[in-house]
Amino acid sequence: MVSDPESAGWMLDPVLERDTRAIGDLPLCRVLLSRDANYSWLLLVPRRKGAIEIIDLDQSDQAQLMSEIDQASRALKSITGCDKINIAAIGNVVKQLHVHVIARFHADAAWPKPVWNAAPAREYQGATAAGLMAAVRNELALEPLQTIAGSGSAA
Amino acid sequence: MVSDPESAGWMLDPVLERDTRAIGDLPLCRVLLSRDANYSWLLLVPRRKGAIEIIDLDQSDQAQLMSEIDQASRALKSITGCDKINIAAIGNVVKQLHVHVIARFHADAAWPKPVWNAAPAREYQGATAAGLMAAVRNELALEPLQTIAGSGSAA
Repeated sequence: MVSDPESAGWMLDPVLERDTRAIGDLPLCRVLLSRDANYSWLLLVPRRKGAIEIIDLDQSDQAQLMSEIDQASRALKSITGCDKINIAAIGNVVKQLHVHVIARFHADAAWPKPVWNAAPAREYQGATAAGLMAAVRNELALEPLQTIAGSGSAA
Repeated sequence: MVSDPESAGWMLDPVLERDTRAIGDLPLCRVLLSRDANYSWLLLVPRRKGAIEIIDLDQSDQAQLMSEIDQASRALKSITGCDKINIAAIGNVVKQLHVHVIARFHADAAWPKPVWNAAPAREYQGATAAGLMAAVRNELALEPLQTIAGSGSAA
């Protein structure tokens, strides 16, 4: 079942798992949707055990990460028509390397501030999150994950 | 004098110029030091006219940007011994594409929050900024800028 030996031993951080929904896997990163409905907010998590900083990735993975940031940004822009894309690798609280890719609007809950510590998180209502996830899957040509790492095998 | 035709017409945004000191040029980016002494905080500004988003850069420039983020991160880590590197391209206020590379410490003014809107900016005292700039120039093998586009001499 393992078609990606470089991902061996990698598991999604439990806080990231709690705060997001899994959309699918790009060649390097798991693509997640934040549960905060204030923003159309993706997270890219390189499936590399122990990676905390971008400098922990080798040159090839860094190049792939940039390519996947580009793809996720274009997908969000295309789906949402946002005014700005915010991209960040912070990781002061959750150490596992993860890159935020966030669609921002002039009228959103935090504009023009960065999203962190700016507005209380808001839950998605109805099928909005599912619709957005389906649109991202379509733009990125992703297969849905069959199961999530930690609870069995991943597609 | 122009050895870099792809940079033709590019000028540093005046707000970035006001809030930073110029350290030097990597092949793609001007390297700046934030005037906020709370953090050892570099900014990388791709010298590409009109670039606002990372997706505005072509694939070759994106790869170079990632390489320069890697270099700047390693330089900061080596110089400061920081606990974490924060990397972000926000640009909600200043549109010109710029990437923050920030050395973070568990005891710094904003930890564990991101630096934006977290603590009042603090000015460098004495020669601290000059020493940091010299160390970054040394780590990145940069020549001091002879002149800054738009304004005269830097260094």
